[in-house]
Amino acid sequence: MILGKVIGTVWSTRKDENLVGAKFLIVRELNLDYSPKKNSLIAVDSVGAGVGENVIVAQGSSARQTNLTKNKPVDAVIMAIVDKLDISVKEKVEELVETK
Amino acid sequence: MILGKVIGTVWSTRKDENLVGAKFLIVRELNLDYSPKKNSLIAVDSVGAGVGENVIVAQGSSARQTNLTKNKPVDAVIMAIVDKLDISVKEKVEELVETK
Amino acid sequence: MILGKVIGTVWSTRKDENLVGAKFLIVRELNLDYSPKKNSLIAVDSVGAGVGENVIVAQGSSARQTNLTKNKPVDAVIMAIVDKLDISVKEKVEELVETK
Amino acid sequence: MILGKVIGTVWSTRKDENLVGAKFLIVRELNLDYSPKKNSLIAVDSVGAGVGENVIVAQGSSARQTNLTKNKPVDAVIMAIVDKLDISVKEKVEELVETK
Amino acid sequence: MILGKVIGTVWSTRKDENLVGAKFLIVRELNLDYSPKKNSLIAVDSVGAGVGENVIVAQGSSARQTNLTKNKPVDAVIMAIVDKLDISVKEKVEELVETK
Repeated sequence: MILGKVIGTVWSTRKDENLVGAKFLIVRELNLDYSPKKNSLIAVDSVGAGVGENVIVAQGSSARQTNLTKNKPVDAVIMAIVDKLDISVKEKVEELVETK
Repeated sequence: MILGKVIGTVWSTRKDENLVGAKFLIVRELNLDYSPKKNSLIAVDSVGAGVGENVIVAQGSSARQTNLTKNKPVDAVIMAIVDKLDISVKEKVEELVETK
Repeated sequence: MILGKVIGTVWSTRKDENLVGAKFLIVRELNLDYSPKKNSLIAVDSVGAGVGENVIVAQGSSARQTNLTKNKPVDAVIMAIVDKLDISVKEKVEELVETK
Repeated sequence: MILGKVIGTVWSTRKDENLVGAKFLIVRELNLDYSPKKNSLIAVDSVGAGVGENVIVAQGSSARQTNLTKNKPVDAVIMAIVDKLDISVKEKVEELVETK
Repeated sequence: MILGKVIGTVWSTRKDENLVGAKFLIVRELNLDYSPKKNSLIAVDSVGAGVGENVIVAQGSSARQTNLTKNKPVDAVIMAIVDKLDISVKEKVEELVETK
């Protein structure tokens, strides 16, 4: 899974009939020091995540393994909200941040 | 899912028999400010998206979870048309755009 | 799906028993102007594609949704032959080509 | 599968109900000489891996093929702990390390 | 599928119970001229591939479509050994090799 931060919402009225009621959030990928990566993706929320919260996103067919997303055409789901990262192995910490 | 813009159509007469009638659209990936990314992909449309519209694309096995794509050899489907992006967390906006 | 061009064939006599008779083609990814990208992949052909033809490739579990590839260990299938690309939105065409 | 090293833990109290009890580990990808790559990911542990250990991670739907992860919204699982890598073909070893 | 070369073995005694007896090989990705790419991955062997041989690797759920890997937490399988690549379209051969 990837670490990300909810930074916004996608508004969509015309969507697949299975997706009525689904909430699409914009998630920006994060480095382990919570600095933003370049990449963002759109995910359905299954845990009540709000804008500004750090979350974990599961992708692919695994994104359909929640009650909310079962059999629906979504490939990314927020399945956990992050309280804290506990990084114990810190050799070369500067390299943990993707600068490019 | 990814954000994209429909920029064209692929014409194909010889295709898998399960795909007769399917419409292949060319979708260019977008940054969150709607500027184009380098990458494009081909997706089947399940929501009546037209050229020029901003859309959401689901990939992988999730692309087969619409009535139109069920059990078909397609790995990308347009499952929503974007009305608006509402980005609330804007720190370092310049980094939201993938320039390379 | 991705756009590609069939550029060759892989010869293999020792392969999984489910794959006897399957034809492995080498597909080079293409930009939207048909110029070649760096990346190539190996795909099974389900539509009678020949060397030199431009094709569409489906990947992942979707590659197993043809009669030829069902339940077989293949993750890429040629499921359509391209007649023509019709690109209607041409802003910044130069950026459509991945130069790096 | 990819080679990685467990470098930490993610704490999360609010998560999908299917994930209660699951342990999320932070895994940094490794080069074949055990030097760290830039990329990290979050995986569920199915083999009792501890921080500092080198592991193998399976991704995608394959991550749900353990007793612990079956039908759960997780897309990465630690399914083996590495004792040793035995690399027999060492031409151009310097290129084995991804420096960028 | 991708083209690769078996360059070594991963030794692992602690692994998921479904994987007892499975052999993990280290596969380095190859360009079409057999020169090595930067990236390596770990795959289960289903065809008796040995170190030094050029092989084809299927990934994702397709990696579980062999008798050896069915329902097991593996996302990459060697499903064919390459005898020969027959590349017929050679325009801009220099670009076929990924130099970066």
